[in-house]
Amino acid sequence: MSILVVGSVFFDSIETPHGKAQRALGGAATYFSVAASFFTPVRMVAAVGEDFPKAEMDFLAKRGIDLSGLQVRPGLTGYWAGRYHEDMNQRDTLDLQLNVFADFQPQLPASHRDARYVFLANIDPRLQSMVLDQLAAPGLIGCDTMNHWIAGSRAELERLLRRVGILVINDEEARQLSGEQNVVRAARRLLTMGPQRVLIKRGEYGVIQFSADSVFAVPAFPLEEVFDPTGAGDTFAGGFMGELARSGDNSEKGLRRAIVYGSVLASFVVEDFGLGRLRALTHEDIERRYRQFVSLTDINGA
Amino acid sequence: MSILVVGSVFFDSIETPHGKAQRALGGAATYFSVAASFFTPVRMVAAVGEDFPKAEMDFLAKRGIDLSGLQVRPGLTGYWAGRYHEDMNQRDTLDLQLNVFADFQPQLPASHRDARYVFLANIDPRLQSMVLDQLAAPGLIGCDTMNHWIAGSRAELERLLRRVGILVINDEEARQLSGEQNVVRAARRLLTMGPQRVLIKRGEYGVIQFSADSVFAVPAFPLEEVFDPTGAGDTFAGGFMGELARSGDNSEKGLRRAIVYGSVLASFVVEDFGLGRLRALTHEDIERRYRQFVSLTDINGA
Repeated sequence: MSILVVGSVFFDSIETPHGKAQRALGGAATYFSVAASFFTPVRMVAAVGEDFPKAEMDFLAKRGIDLSGLQVRPGLTGYWAGRYHEDMNQRDTLDLQLNVFADFQPQLPASHRDARYVFLANIDPRLQSMVLDQLAAPGLIGCDTMNHWIAGSRAELERLLRRVGILVINDEEARQLSGEQNVVRAARRLLTMGPQRVLIKRGEYGVIQFSADSVFAVPAFPLEEVFDPTGAGDTFAGGFMGELARSGDNSEKGLRRAIVYGSVLASFVVEDFGLGRLRALTHEDIERRYRQFVSLTDINGA
Repeated sequence: MSILVVGSVFFDSIETPHGKAQRALGGAATYFSVAASFFTPVRMVAAVGEDFPKAEMDFLAKRGIDLSGLQVRPGLTGYWAGRYHEDMNQRDTLDLQLNVFADFQPQLPASHRDARYVFLANIDPRLQSMVLDQLAAPGLIGCDTMNHWIAGSRAELERLLRRVGILVINDEEARQLSGEQNVVRAARRLLTMGPQRVLIKRGEYGVIQFSADSVFAVPAFPLEEVFDPTGAGDTFAGGFMGELARSGDNSEKGLRRAIVYGSVLASFVVEDFGLGRLRALTHEDIERRYRQFVSLTDINGA
């Protein structure tokens, strides 16, 4: 089964303690799509400007990403510039130009309305709901959000969450959205708001998944160097939802496997700036690191 | 095989967002010993004052803890008072009276000098070395330390580490001792300083173990309430080293199982003030939570 994603495509200028990258291809929908494309065909719904390079279009298309929902609009592609601190959990935004993303309205091509697996990357919850309104028979809906919408558009976000199966957010967002400091209580509260599953991303500490009757925690892959954390969360979501759409296995076992694949993809993307590492990634790389995750976490391992 | 531990026995007055406890039995050697006593006989080497209650002596003895190395000295038992913040990773020390602990010199009874499994809880590294000097044929030596000694007694600590098999410290200490911010690089550096294994405690995120050729990460058990984090690290070490001494299995598999047992014990101790939860703990409780850890971490689980 293919996966449909709606979100942002940006150019990012990134500075980390290890170096810098100028106008690297980025945005949540991009990281998600490229990661998911290792597992299943992807349909990307987003907006770029007339400046968007043909070479990047070709790169995305060659990865099996259907670009018929990608609007090319008069103006410039969104742009973000940021600088990470020595502690790379902290970063400052140096510049933000929304450009054509400012009045982005997701319009699904007729051919996309049959989508079963859908991921709503972090955009205005009104737009996320608009996407769901256009689907004929939505199946498994995943969704991300951020502090800006939790604080400023809570009612719209809560309406959306009632239609969402899997919420994928980070620990700070989980606390803010639930009003609970403790991660278990936060997740239990979020599970009452609609989603059947809540996946909480904990950066270098990995991911913890909650459902009504199960908890699953997986560490992040221990890396000696993180070059650029940009897009790690969206890359996780892409690997996770991509593998779910590929397998069609929404059992606890299928979800756990998908969470590990998401963690594998996220562990690669931070090894280089922007999408650099994913551009060179192979299925053999992915399977090798999956096996390393098994060895890293196996209580009965040797 | 029995396990010998050297460290502090204190009374703790503790305030957390959930309540308070006055003069609860505490100290690293106490938490360690009680946790380890669920797995194997324990020999405790420490000093208390004449005020130490007979009821607590009886409690420790009944748990199979050999107190022949516990010095009862003129004066008072050490005392610590602290208050945890809303974020319980932070705490303030309100009072500290070392009392008889101030000039504690570990003297092993002749009957203890054959000890094979030994844990050097956090005390002056000069005293930790003194303990090793008294052992006839030390086997597996575990060791903890803290920021105070890393900053003020580095040479003595480095001398000690060359004699230690397993270093058990928290992430902040690992960074300080290694001079590396990244946990993998920190562990690799610490492995060059003597220990064959480095276990890094990451609080609510669990434990990660490094050796020359393996990495193992286990999350902490997700709890809805942490009543009192005091002693969690020492309780982890007690469950870990206690299980290792019980099984005599120092293989990677044996170490992983011991790390999970340590995590199980630590997950219980924080559920009540001081040693409260461990006083009522049963082997059935431990085995049930061990199985929950398997389910929590099993990539192939359902």
